[in-house]
Amino acid sequence: NIIAVIYKVENRELPLKNKKVLITAGPTQEPVDTVRFFTNYSSGKMGYALAEVAKNLGAQVTLVSGPVDLDVLPGVETIKISSADEMFEAVTSRFDEQDIVIKSAAVADYRPKDVHDKKLKKQGHDITVELERTTDILSTLGERKNHQYLVGFAAETDQHLEHGKRKLQKKNLDAIVINDISNPNIGFKSDDNEVNILTKTGQEYAISTRSKKEIAQELLTLIMKDMMGEAK
Amino acid sequence: NIIAVIYKVENRELPLKNKKVLITAGPTQEPVDTVRFFTNYSSGKMGYALAEVAKNLGAQVTLVSGPVDLDVLPGVETIKISSADEMFEAVTSRFDEQDIVIKSAAVADYRPKDVHDKKLKKQGHDITVELERTTDILSTLGERKNHQYLVGFAAETDQHLEHGKRKLQKKNLDAIVINDISNPNIGFKSDDNEVNILTKTGQEYAISTRSKKEIAQELLTLIMKDMMGEAK
Repeated sequence: NIIAVIYKVENRELPLKNKKVLITAGPTQEPVDTVRFFTNYSSGKMGYALAEVAKNLGAQVTLVSGPVDLDVLPGVETIKISSADEMFEAVTSRFDEQDIVIKSAAVADYRPKDVHDKKLKKQGHDITVELERTTDILSTLGERKNHQYLVGFAAETDQHLEHGKRKLQKKNLDAIVINDISNPNIGFKSDDNEVNILTKTGQEYAISTRSKKEIAQELLTLIMKDMMGEAK
Repeated sequence: NIIAVIYKVENRELPLKNKKVLITAGPTQEPVDTVRFFTNYSSGKMGYALAEVAKNLGAQVTLVSGPVDLDVLPGVETIKISSADEMFEAVTSRFDEQDIVIKSAAVADYRPKDVHDKKLKKQGHDITVELERTTDILSTLGERKNHQYLVGFAAETDQHLEHGKRKLQKKNLDAIVINDISNPNIGFKSDDNEVNILTKTGQEYAISTRSKKEIAQELLTLIMKDMMGEAK
């Protein structure tokens, strides 16, 4: 790929060589019973694009992926999970040794309180499903982090910049990527996206509509710049 | 394919020539808000196998498919839907002119009562989602049918034969295909299945584990036999 070629031509080391990068991708599935579950429209494309670009930049990449319809990436250690609980376990158990963690997965905030081990029979009347909060993985990582550069994603339908900025601070992130999901042409299943990126160091970037692969390249470039700035 | 070749070699007409067959496949998605939804593990493989086999037997096939990860079948008119409501509309509007209708889709029985047009914000405490029944498509077709041969599917975790037989009668079906979903090695995402088929005319078949394509061939053969028997 182009980035790798450029660095090779210039006879430099790949910029993320010897760096460990963990990326999460896709939705989670939260079972109601043996056949039904709650989930969301995340396609995993943004996370897979990030994993591929990070690998091409020389990183040792771990991709923790929910159920998606995407090909496995060669050279990327991929861990498949299904529920928010499994995502929590897979990410927190590998967090300490990472240099960069990018949580692009759309992990369920809520899961059914009772999971039935048989398929629920139909009843004539309405029913209610009680949902409880899942453990907030991003907050957990924000509290635990020491040297890691931690990036979160926010999908917002209104006041997306304000909501995103609040999330950046509250969860002790180094950067946040904000999707304005009120625009139906971008995000989720689409190959394209349009995002705003804010960093803890106060930088703000608006990235206009382009492919998720290009956004992945921009984001990783910004992360590397920001990490070098902090190291000064 | 083999069946088509056999019929051609024998210089006979394809057995479903001039017959209209409507098949439903896959899950439905029932939105909670703009990003979250309820769904189920149906892969659509059984329905797509039925559509392919019916087409190869000479039928004019309409496939009404929920969101699945399968290739479009050449020569099969495919209508993509997402929710139980859309499935109802697509199937009932095409029902009258069909000769055979096989409802292999796993249509949601329940959908969230209120669909929020913004992404719900997280709240600290538990929440409840109120669900209401979707319209029972199979029962609607059972009431409305005149000449159509109507086949339903049942996915049961216990007493599957008894539950299936009751559904056959209650919904005025001509045949029912019963999956015992307590066995994790078959059904849903699997390429294989093991089913029991009961007909209104009192025939019972147990089909041991084999590919969904082979089960599709068996089922369509049984339907054709049963239809000819009734015509006598």
